[in-house]
This record gives sequence, structure tokens and C-alpha cells, in this order.
Amino acid sequence: MRVDPAFWWVGMKNPKLQLLVHGPSIGNSTATLAAYPGVTLDGVQKVESANYLVINLTIGPDAKPGQLKLEFKGSKKLTYAYALRARSTDPQRTQGLTQADFIYMLMPDRFSNGDPKNDVVKGTRVNHIARDSMYARHGGDIRGIQNHFAYFKQLGVTAIWPTPLVENDMPKASYHGYAVTDGYRIDPRYGTNAEYAQFVKAAHADGLKVVQDIVLNHWGSYHYLFLDKPAADWFHQFPSFTRSNYNAFALNDPYGSKRDYTLFNDGWFDTTMPDVNQGNPLVATYLIQNFLWWVESTGLDGYRIDTYPYSEPQFLMAWGKAIAEEFPRLTLFGEAWEGTEAEQAFFAQNILPPVNGFKSNLPGVLDFQIAFAISDALKTENGDLSKLYHALQADWLYVDATRNVLFLDNHDMSRFYSVIGEDFNKFKTSIAWLLTLRGTPQLYYGTEVLMKNFSNPDGKVREDFPGGFVGDKVNYFSSRPGQAGEAFDYVSKLATYRKAHPVLSSGKLMQFIPQDGVYTYFRYSDTECVMVIANNTKDEKTVDGTRFAERTDGFSSGVEVVSGAAISDLKTLRVPAHTAWVVELRR
Amino acid sequence: MRVDPAFWWVGMKNPKLQLLVHGPSIGNSTATLAAYPGVTLDGVQKVESANYLVINLTIGPDAKPGQLKLEFKGSKKLTYAYALRARSTDPQRTQGLTQADFIYMLMPDRFSNGDPKNDVVKGTRVNHIARDSMYARHGGDIRGIQNHFAYFKQLGVTAIWPTPLVENDMPKASYHGYAVTDGYRIDPRYGTNAEYAQFVKAAHADGLKVVQDIVLNHWGSYHYLFLDKPAADWFHQFPSFTRSNYNAFALNDPYGSKRDYTLFNDGWFDTTMPDVNQGNPLVATYLIQNFLWWVESTGLDGYRIDTYPYSEPQFLMAWGKAIAEEFPRLTLFGEAWEGTEAEQAFFAQNILPPVNGFKSNLPGVLDFQIAFAISDALKTENGDLSKLYHALQADWLYVDATRNVLFLDNHDMSRFYSVIGEDFNKFKTSIAWLLTLRGTPQLYYGTEVLMKNFSNPDGKVREDFPGGFVGDKVNYFSSRPGQAGEAFDYVSKLATYRKAHPVLSSGKLMQFIPQDGVYTYFRYSDTECVMVIANNTKDEKTVDGTRFAERTDGFSSGVEVVSGAAISDLKTLRVPAHTAWVVELRR
Repeated sequence: MRVDPAFWWVGMKNPKLQLLVHGPSIGNSTATLAAYPGVTLDGVQKVESANYLVINLTIGPDAKPGQLKLEFKGSKKLTYAYALRARSTDPQRTQGLTQADFIYMLMPDRFSNGDPKNDVVKGTRVNHIARDSMYARHGGDIRGIQNHFAYFKQLGVTAIWPTPLVENDMPKASYHGYAVTDGYRIDPRYGTNAEYAQFVKAAHADGLKVVQDIVLNHWGSYHYLFLDKPAADWFHQFPSFTRSNYNAFALNDPYGSKRDYTLFNDGWFDTTMPDVNQGNPLVATYLIQNFLWWVESTGLDGYRIDTYPYSEPQFLMAWGKAIAEEFPRLTLFGEAWEGTEAEQAFFAQNILPPVNGFKSNLPGVLDFQIAFAISDALKTENGDLSKLYHALQADWLYVDATRNVLFLDNHDMSRFYSVIGEDFNKFKTSIAWLLTLRGTPQLYYGTEVLMKNFSNPDGKVREDFPGGFVGDKVNYFSSRPGQAGEAFDYVSKLATYRKAHPVLSSGKLMQFIPQDGVYTYFRYSDTECVMVIANNTKDEKTVDGTRFAERTDGFSSGVEVVSGAAISDLKTLRVPAHTAWVVELRR
Repeated sequence: MRVDPAFWWVGMKNPKLQLLVHGPSIGNSTATLAAYPGVTLDGVQKVESANYLVINLTIGPDAKPGQLKLEFKGSKKLTYAYALRARSTDPQRTQGLTQADFIYMLMPDRFSNGDPKNDVVKGTRVNHIARDSMYARHGGDIRGIQNHFAYFKQLGVTAIWPTPLVENDMPKASYHGYAVTDGYRIDPRYGTNAEYAQFVKAAHADGLKVVQDIVLNHWGSYHYLFLDKPAADWFHQFPSFTRSNYNAFALNDPYGSKRDYTLFNDGWFDTTMPDVNQGNPLVATYLIQNFLWWVESTGLDGYRIDTYPYSEPQFLMAWGKAIAEEFPRLTLFGEAWEGTEAEQAFFAQNILPPVNGFKSNLPGVLDFQIAFAISDALKTENGDLSKLYHALQADWLYVDATRNVLFLDNHDMSRFYSVIGEDFNKFKTSIAWLLTLRGTPQLYYGTEVLMKNFSNPDGKVREDFPGGFVGDKVNYFSSRPGQAGEAFDYVSKLATYRKAHPVLSSGKLMQFIPQDGVYTYFRYSDTECVMVIANNTKDEKTVDGTRFAERTDGFSSGVEVVSGAAISDLKTLRVPAHTAWVVELRR
């Protein structure tokens, strides 16, 4: 017999608990709860499949930790001891991220193999590793991440976002993590639930935060709840495979068809990823509890929500509310890979009224508009800077756009160093923007050592981190020759400066309209001011600094914080070709 | 002595009237009003210049038409008889435009010369015509427009929008109309105020409406109020010429600088176009009264507001409110040439809360986003259709986007037929979209006969309409050979069909996400349905029509409304390369 959630806690703000009991013909049983002070059995619910039973409990405020005794009477009699635990009182847990953080995103299978014992796990559908195949598992794991906390700290990152670590027991491409087969279990090829909880604790002890990557929209087709469905309507099903149209615009198109709306929301993300029907209240509660469970279990700091727009709009609101009520400090940000600023803002907390009954309560999103804009600015000679200016200007649509997460690339996009034609000056410009604009910056693993490739196929941008695996010829964790080292040092220096100078993360932002291929903005407080000025052309530019008098008045000179170069004249700025300066202004 | 407004009316909703009196040293006089029942003199206000006096009156609800007697006592004694007229009761006046209308935009100097007597007007700064110069006046006039009402009706347009007809007594390029030198006077090279009023009346009698093109942001540098300023602060002035940065994004950039904001709002639109300071309440009232005056004087149907975002935000709100309160049926739409859907919607009535105290009350805007999207779709081979789909989807940001005005090009843009590489099939597609999408369509003069050219310099897209001038070798008003004739007929047929089938203008719209280079939408009511399907590729496409079942159920076949071709099978649609069909569905 399996019961989800596997255990629960006393003292949660929401006293309701829905148990999904799975066992052969368990649905033909009656269920009772042995007397337990403070806990009541509200009801038992049968579903379509006889292999499931839903038990609804209320865990009153006076209930104490202990074991609930559930009794099932059917063809035979079963008992189940269900654990009610005490909540953690550790104040270090779930601190949430702020703009002062710097996130390192990595793919665990491809980052570092720290525990060879879990490379091959009997009983899993892919029980071998093959580092020469981009679709196979390579052996990376939780221990591999944990082994490199020192590396993260040297680089200056403060938070780790691994792609999903929960079980993906799929027969193919099981490494990427987005085809979940058991949402309550860490994939054994990465470690155990206990190891994961210990990993979060160790990270906190080392001053690092942890973001968990979660999927609400779909599961893997080998999920136990798909292989043996509680009811047909736990999933959106079609007579034949029907793919999502990937078009979130259908949600708020005033002229949209029902067909396009349904295809977007209910169509499958991929052939192996059944679309979960969150319109079923049992499913909605299952998903809410699943993600309350991980926070309370581990003390993690934030959720990155995959394919955020693809779930039912009403469910997203209910889910976000339930999570935030229980864990107000938890950071939430979603993937909303949309084509316009307004559409992106639609999926975050924004100043707009509800549209079709939907008003997002998601605090922030992954800022694709800024990623696109930086890419557009840098991928061609004399690229257009106005899109970057506009992407920031569009912040007027948000309640608080500083809760967005900034990035240059990720596991689904071409590696940024390739996008910019392996131009090291452009690399420095992009890192300067990433670490000095508003929001929480995120770096994709390997960008700091100039890993490259275009994203078709995906595996090309998910290569192993050099040095993460036994037998690697180079080890970038310990030694980074040439430009890889320069790149690492640039990121590290700027991240370290940023850590020491909160004005770069929490200071106000003022930007000036790009002119003549030069884009200039300032981060400032009452006492401090940092100027970021980027010449995106192939010629040196002489910039009339008096244009920035609103911010430079009272300052007489500056120092470029990475190179240490003195900027003696703020009135006439000679910025070399393809160069970004991050200038601390001095009085 | 000059008094603005030149006359006024009894019975206006707003009883207040501000008279600006201009005369040598008039400011050193006292002013009194001879007793007049229902009218009170609220005050007399001096301004910086002694050549002006401001008189504030209240025209009470019981005041009767007549002559107010104003007496001025200074170095000498003057009297001025100020006319208070009765308001018109003609119900045909100021009907406003709806989506059922079809606007023809033209440049009066370049359209047709109907009255050679006003070609050269003594005392004007450009008192000659030179048809071989794109900067000179060519002689077109109001009579020229009026002579061609039959042409408009044959084409199927229902409203005329001439670029500004008021005095532009500038020494250079005075033909275009956007450098106003007297906002109360029709330029004598076009006709007289009386001829203009008669033109509006004649248009109405012929079933045509009139849109007046107005400028709130700037005047020409030979405006009498600039040559002899009431006060320095009637204009935004700078130590040396300072151009607007043309960047309306500065208005709502949460990170914007004061400098960029000020440059945008207060910088001059061009060297010869001083920026009017509407922050001065006298100026604001002057501009409000000026445009109440034209409506009541003539009964015109709508205002097209040039460079809408460039005026003071608070003034725009006050101006829009005052005009709408007095003339609720008047149509108002503005030019907001912006780069994103959200930014465009910001300048119309939208669902957003106020930003920086600004909430536009402008009912509609010229829909540049749709113009850009149509252009992007058609200007290259296999152009992207998704931008057009997105531009419509973004209507969720508006209170009512059907009040936007659709267009392909205008006097500032390259002529659309050149943009699409003079491809006649693409021309038909663009006209099909123009006349069947939501909003009020607008055609730029000459597009219907395939006039072409790129817009740099402007004059290239402001060429004379063939046949509008004595000596023209061809006369497209009467005979349109070859493809020009085919183009005219396509527009005319579709416009005529549209007029007879309100479903195309006021019916609901449903669009389907573009697929495989084909974009499909429907205009429909409870009983009627028109399908517009455009194949934007170089290959015939077979489209699975069952995808559109939401709209096609109940219909069995259709007729392409321009060609008359039968579409016998709605389930399998074979759409030729680069072809748009407008299909009336049949049961």
C-alpha cells in the first residue's frame, strides 16, 4: 500500500489533508481512523479505479505528532500507520531568495558524479550510464553538486537550481528530469530523499540556498498515477496523441477559439508527457500537497515552476495561494516563455485586472524578454540596444519586476557564448548586464567557463561540466586555463563586488535611452552610485557624460570595478569598442 | 485687434469662455463688458506681453445669441463686438465614425486642384506653386476634394481624412499642414473657413463623413502666437534648439530619467515646430476651445490627433474630457507610433490603472502594431503571420480595440505597394485584411491605384494623384488602365460588400493561430459568417477545415465574395499560393 503524501505534519496553517491511498482493490474497502486527539476523519471517497481510496482528514491545531492508525476493511483487513511529524523550527530553513542572490542553474546528471554507487540502480528503466550519448544518463548526482559548494562560492553564486531531481523512471532520456514518474521521491540515480534533505541543510550551512525545479503541468508517461490511473479524468486525454499548440496567447486572446484554448491547456507537452488535469479537485489538492511537502521536508528556498502558463489558470491561482499562505518566505518564479512583454507580465503579479478570470499571483517569472533583448543586442554587429531598454521600461506592467529572474541562457537555449559568436568582449558585456540589472541573476552551468554549442538537439547544450566526472582530461573546478579562466574571473570578481555592494542589487535603477550604440544605466542609493555603460559598437565612443547629470552630480571620478581602471572624467567618457564598464562613482 | 476664439455659442455645456485678445499694447488697457443678460465677466488677466489680454466670461444657460460689447480703456478707447451664436440643430452634424466606415486619407495639396484661383495667395510666405518640387505647394485644395465625392463613393469609402487644412503660412514645405500658423483659419491656398464648413456639409449630404487632422503638441514657428508670444512659457524653450527624443517610452519607464522625460515631452518635434506648453492653463484652454470651435462651426465627425503621446499627459486627459463632454458623438483617434502592443494600448482607453497619473481617455489609436504586423507578414517571402495574430490578441489590453483605426500606410511611411515588392496578390491579401479585421479601416490616397515609392524623403510618398491636376496625362479618377484598375475594383468590390454586410464590420471576430503559413479568422453573427483565409506562402496549401468547426458547423459551402468563386468543400480547403479568400459561408 502506498499513501501520498507519505507523511504530514501537525501545525500546518491549513488543517485539511487529503490522503491518496493506492493498493490492489483498496477502493472496495471501508476505511476508518482509530481515535487520535485533534484529528478527525472527514470522509472517504471512492474514485473510478478500485485501486484507490481518498481519505480526507482534519489535523486540528491541538494534534500532537504521532502515528495515525488507518484501518481498511475489504476482502481482507489492513492497517496503515500514517506519520504526523512535528514541523521544523530551524530558522535557517526556507529563507527565500532576494535580488542579492545569484543563482547557478545546473543539470545534475551532467554536472558531476559524486557517488558512483548510484550510477546504475537496479529496477530503474535506464540502468546504465553512457557518457558518449547525449540522451543517456551520465552519472551526475546530488553528491556531485554538494562536492562543489566551494566552487560555487568561489564563483560568487549564492543559490543552486538543479533541474528536477525527483524520479524520472522513463525508458528514454530520463536524465533531464521533466518527465516525473514519482513526485515524492528523489530519483535513486541522484540519491535518496534523505540525501536531498541533507544536501539542502548542508547548502544552508555553507551560505547557499536551494531552488527546486518543479513541473505542475505534466508528468512522465511512466508515472505510477498514469500507469494505474485513479480515474480517466486525472489526465487530459484525446482519441489520438494531441500536442499542445504551445501558444499561451490563446489564454487571453479576446478572439480566440475554444479549440486553440483547449489545445494549449490540455494538449500534451510531448508524446511521453501526459497533461495532468488540475481541473479535477483531487488532482489539484494532490499537487498542492506535493509541493507543501517538499518545503516542509527539506527547508528549500524556492520553486522554479516549469511551463507555468500551461496549467489550468484557476488551478495556478489556487496553487500559488496555498503555497504562499503556508510558506510566505518561499521564493516562487515561473517559466513563461512568451513573445511579448505584456504576455510575459500577464503570467506574473501585474497591475492588470483579471482577464478571463485569471490574475496571476506568481511573484516573478524567468525574464525571457530581457534574455531575448540581450541576445538581440549582442548577437549581431551593432545590435539594437533599444529592445533591452524597452524590456526594462515594460516593468511598469508588473507589481514588482525585481522579483523576476534574469538569465542569458538555459538548458533549452543555445549557449550564450555561441549566440554571441564566441566574442569575449560581448561575453563581458552580457555578464555586466546580468549582474547589475534589476532582478535575481541566474547563470547556466558552464557559461562561466565559456561552454558553447547551439541547442538543436538539446543535448548539445547539456554537456558534462569538465572535471565533474572521473577520467575527465581537464578539471575546470580546479584549473581554468586561458579564456575560460578569464571568464570565470570576470564573473567571480563582479559577483563578489555585487555581494559587497548592495547598491548593485537593491539600489534604485535609472536608465537612459540608448544613443549612438551606447546604453547607460545607474544603480544608486542616497550615498552610492554605480554607472554601467556599454558601447555596443565596433568603434570607440565619446559619450557626453553631462547627459547623466541627474546621477553623476556630486561625483567627480570613478573606478571600473572589475579592471580597477580609473575613470577620471565623468563629463567626457571614452568607451572602447564592444566594452561595458561597471563604474563605482567617487566623490 | 484679434480675439480667439473668433466667436462662440450660447448653450455650450461648459459655460466658461476664455478670450485671448491680441492687439498692440492691449494689455495696458482695462476691459469691461457692457451688460448682457446671462453673460458675466469673471475677470481680466494680464500676461507677460502687453500685446495680450485674457478675458474670462461665463455664458449662462439663459444667454441669447447676440453681440457682446467689450470695451477697452488704455491709451485709447476701443470697443469690440463679440458674436455669440446659436448652436446648430442639424441632426446630420457630427455623427461620428463606426467600424462600418471606411476612411480615405489624403494630402489636400497633392490630391486635386479644384480652384486655380487660390493657387497663389498674396501675402502668404509661399505664394507660388511648383509641381516639380516635392517640397513646394502643388495647388490641391478643398474644392479638389469636393469635386471627387463621386470617386470616393465609387471606391466605397465613407469618410474623408485630409491632412491639416488650417493655415500653415511657413516659408518652406508649407504644403504638409503639420506646422500650423493659425489654428482658427483654413489655409487660403485650400479655401476659406466658409468653404470648409460648406465642404463638410456637402460631404454629409452625400453620405460622407469628415475627419479633421489636428496637432496639439506643436505649432509652426510662424504661428502668430509664437512670433508675438503672450508669454515665454507658452512654449517649451531651450538655450539652443533641442529636439524631442521621440521616445514615448520615457513617459512610463519606471527607471526613466527626468532628462529623457523632459526631452520627450518638451523637446521640439522639428526645428520649425515649437513645442507648445500645455502645462500653462491658458494654453490648455486655448487648445480645448480651438477644437470645440471647429466641431460646432462645421459639424465635422472626428478628430485624428497628430503626435498624440507628445503632449503633456495631464493636458491630454483634460482635453479629451472637455471635447467628449461637449461632443459625445465625435470620434477621436490618435497617432501613437509606438514599438510594442502594450505601449500603444497605454495611449488609448485601456484596462490598466493610471501610470504616473496618466490614464488615457482616447477612445482609439491608429493601429501601428497591426500595420507593422501586416507589413512583416507580407514584405518577405513566407513572412511571419504570428505577429498579426499577436497584434489582435493584444486587444485584451484595451477597453475597446474596435475603436482603433486600421491602415497599411500613411504619409510618413513607404507606400505599401512598394513595401510588398509590388506583388499584386499580396496587395489583395492586405486589402482583404484591412477591410475585414476589427476597427475602422483607413486607406491612404493612391493605394487603391497602386501608387508606389519608398518614404525617404517623405515627398516621394506624397505625389500628386494622377488626374487631380490640369495637364495630367492620365486621369485615374475616370479611367484606370491595367492593374491600377484591377486594384481599384478589388477595393471597391470588397468595400461595397462590406457596406452591405455589417457582419464584416460589427460582427464578432474569431481567429485561429496561424499554421503552416495560413492565417484564418471569421467575422460572424448568430446568422451570418464570413471566413477570411490567407495563404502567405508560395505553395498551394490544403487546409483541414474541420479545425474551424466552431464557426463552420451549420454551413456547407461558401462563395468568395470578390471573385464570386464557389468554395464547395469547407472541410478541405485548397488555398492557392499567396492568396486571401473572403468567403461568405452558406448553409
